[in-house]
Amino acid sequence: RIDGQRLWASLMEMAEIGATQKGGCNRQALTDLDKQGRDLFVSWAKAAGCSTTVDRIGNIFARLDGSDATADPILMGSHLDTQATGGKFDGVYGVLAGLEVVRTLVDAKVQLARPLEIAVWTNEEGCRFSPAMLGSGVVSGTYSLEDAYGATDKDGKRLGEELERIGYRGDLEAAPRPYAGMFEAHIEQGPILEAEEKTIGIVTGIQGANWFDLTVKGESAHAGPTPMTMRRDPWRAVAPIVSQVLALADENAPWGRATIGDITAQPGARNTVPHTLSLSIDIRHPDAGTLADMETRMRQLIEQACSNAGVSFTLEQVWKMEPTAFAPQLVDAVEEAAKALGYSHMRLVSGAGHDSLHTAQFAPTAMIFVPCADGLSHNELESAEADDLEAGANVMLKAVARLAQA
Amino acid sequence: RIDGQRLWASLMEMAEIGATQKGGCNRQALTDLDKQGRDLFVSWAKAAGCSTTVDRIGNIFARLDGSDATADPILMGSHLDTQATGGKFDGVYGVLAGLEVVRTLVDAKVQLARPLEIAVWTNEEGCRFSPAMLGSGVVSGTYSLEDAYGATDKDGKRLGEELERIGYRGDLEAAPRPYAGMFEAHIEQGPILEAEEKTIGIVTGIQGANWFDLTVKGESAHAGPTPMTMRRDPWRAVAPIVSQVLALADENAPWGRATIGDITAQPGARNTVPHTLSLSIDIRHPDAGTLADMETRMRQLIEQACSNAGVSFTLEQVWKMEPTAFAPQLVDAVEEAAKALGYSHMRLVSGAGHDSLHTAQFAPTAMIFVPCADGLSHNELESAEADDLEAGANVMLKAVARLAQA
Ligand SMILES: NC(=O)NCCC(=O)O
Ligand SMILES: NC(=O)NCCC(=O)O
Repeated sequence: RIDGQRLWASLMEMAEIGATQKGGCNRQALTDLDKQGRDLFVSWAKAAGCSTTVDRIGNIFARLDGSDATADPILMGSHLDTQATGGKFDGVYGVLAGLEVVRTLVDAKVQLARPLEIAVWTNEEGCRFSPAMLGSGVVSGTYSLEDAYGATDKDGKRLGEELERIGYRGDLEAAPRPYAGMFEAHIEQGPILEAEEKTIGIVTGIQGANWFDLTVKGESAHAGPTPMTMRRDPWRAVAPIVSQVLALADENAPWGRATIGDITAQPGARNTVPHTLSLSIDIRHPDAGTLADMETRMRQLIEQACSNAGVSFTLEQVWKMEPTAFAPQLVDAVEEAAKALGYSHMRLVSGAGHDSLHTAQFAPTAMIFVPCADGLSHNELESAEADDLEAGANVMLKAVARLAQA
Repeated sequence: RIDGQRLWASLMEMAEIGATQKGGCNRQALTDLDKQGRDLFVSWAKAAGCSTTVDRIGNIFARLDGSDATADPILMGSHLDTQATGGKFDGVYGVLAGLEVVRTLVDAKVQLARPLEIAVWTNEEGCRFSPAMLGSGVVSGTYSLEDAYGATDKDGKRLGEELERIGYRGDLEAAPRPYAGMFEAHIEQGPILEAEEKTIGIVTGIQGANWFDLTVKGESAHAGPTPMTMRRDPWRAVAPIVSQVLALADENAPWGRATIGDITAQPGARNTVPHTLSLSIDIRHPDAGTLADMETRMRQLIEQACSNAGVSFTLEQVWKMEPTAFAPQLVDAVEEAAKALGYSHMRLVSGAGHDSLHTAQFAPTAMIFVPCADGLSHNELESAEADDLEAGANVMLKAVARLAQA
């Protein structure tokens, strides 16, 4: 069993770096605060008996040797960077739960057969440098190192130079190495576990997501003198599109998702019919076929609504995350651990992307979710219970221990 | 008959002050360019034999004496300020058509019984200093001189000081004086005359308009992990509200108008359900009772849609312009002049507010519309035909001449 109080104390100590007034954290990727957080983790990992290496994209690997030096290691981890208005747990929990597993084994003087590695992935949040999940994505080959170095923040600072500046541009090649498995513990970032009153979420995979920019163009006109019949108002298409895209997700309950996160009107004057409305659309489903159907129907309804309204449109796909199924044997191992420890649990799919999306491409991967209050995350009020965080780390310890001896 | 070429030449000369690359004008109220435009007008009016006075809010009155010094004068005019991306005709035409009437009478050595005054109203556009139609509104008592002086632009400059700086803070009290009538010639700013192939619009009044800010509040949530049934997405109310508010105007065709000119989503992130959607609503109708009905039904449908969606709202009225009926005898005089001159014509209501809204409160008022290409205005591509502008000024001359002898 892990030490829940030590885990909580480490989470709270890390949360002081970049602490915000509302009780959250602002420790964005590759800032001075991110460096402080990384340094603190490295000092803890060394104190626990780990050796640490850093790869070219700044991912940190803290290694605890096993008794079999030739065996493939087991990876645990997540990220230490946060959103600008982030919380104390998103990402950090996965790293410090991994550290707590190592500390527990070392304290108990248990050496497993396989080596263990705790990974701190660079720039998961994507709020300072785009795209999100970048460090794990470079290792999986989804993004090139060159493109990653060239990513710039809004002040024009380049990721490669910021990595260098904070001393985390390492020498290790950023490429897949053989792993027996990868476990990522994380807060759910959604309301399901809380609503179902379960402590542990056995995550079977990650939903597919498809991001679009829709631009609908009509014609601007003065709000007063222009009769309704002489307008080409993009709202005549956009209002039904919004309703129908949301309905598309409803029809694919319980897993379908559709979100219109942002919209702008141009010119955006109170007494002018807008000539252009631009909106973002995010649709998700864990099943690739259903997600593709949702996309097809979305394209049809947009086409139809714009044609009915006599306006034109462009639809640009800006990102696509294919549905990811985690490794069945690791998912089962997590479930058996939760069962053996007597924690209430349920299987579910992750609605959000995580570094595990990328590690699943080169290592058998599973995730362990714990509840967070009101499903809130990317929010300074993000909150999780010490008991639940302890339970998640205990499940990880048990699943790791079993896999490490296999 | 007025001199159409001279009118056109004066319009083009004035348009050089603040000319934009796309062929429009940027001559915003109380800027150095506005001063240049005012100075040019004053020099022309003096050359035509007028005396000029300026009131405390900067309205300019250029007076041509009549043979009866005791008779109430006739007012003609509009404004010389433009939008930032304005055109050559909006406002300017009404001032220079008045000047052309004076020049024509003076050239023909005709002295009417009544004095004539050409008014240049301060800050009609409202894009630099809010509200719009301010100069005429201070004279009508709608706004106080003190509030008007205190209006600030986005750099924090005060209207009163800017008036002083450009030398147009006059001594004349900004208050109603007795007038026999007021005529404002203006481009239609809408597509009706063009569609109906009429040269002259006999404007019977100004529509009522009612401006609102609607704020709909739900709850933000992560676009991935949050099931549709656990969201409080403000779009579930806003999409039907937009459709139904537009339909409300359709049902009150041909005069009903509804415009959703602007909208913002908060926090406005692609993968976050917005907690707040804020939109502007502009509804119009020439009949006060129908406009009130539209407002009642709008309030009901917003209430209903928000209650259905489980979200809250606030609805704030930000401006109200009551429907204005122009003086029947002046409207008839304009119509008779158009008929006598053989111009095609039709009666219509102004969809947009004009200085005539305010003058109608202290003087019998009428407006004369001429077509503009594609109904476009508040746009650098605003365009009108020299023949139509000449026709409008001829109608004004005839109507003024008749009223001046009555
Ligand atoms: N965990 C997380 O918030 N990932 C961001 C990408 C997404 O929207 O799924
Ligand atoms: N003429 C004009 O554009 N007035 C502005 C106020 C309105 O929207 O009617």
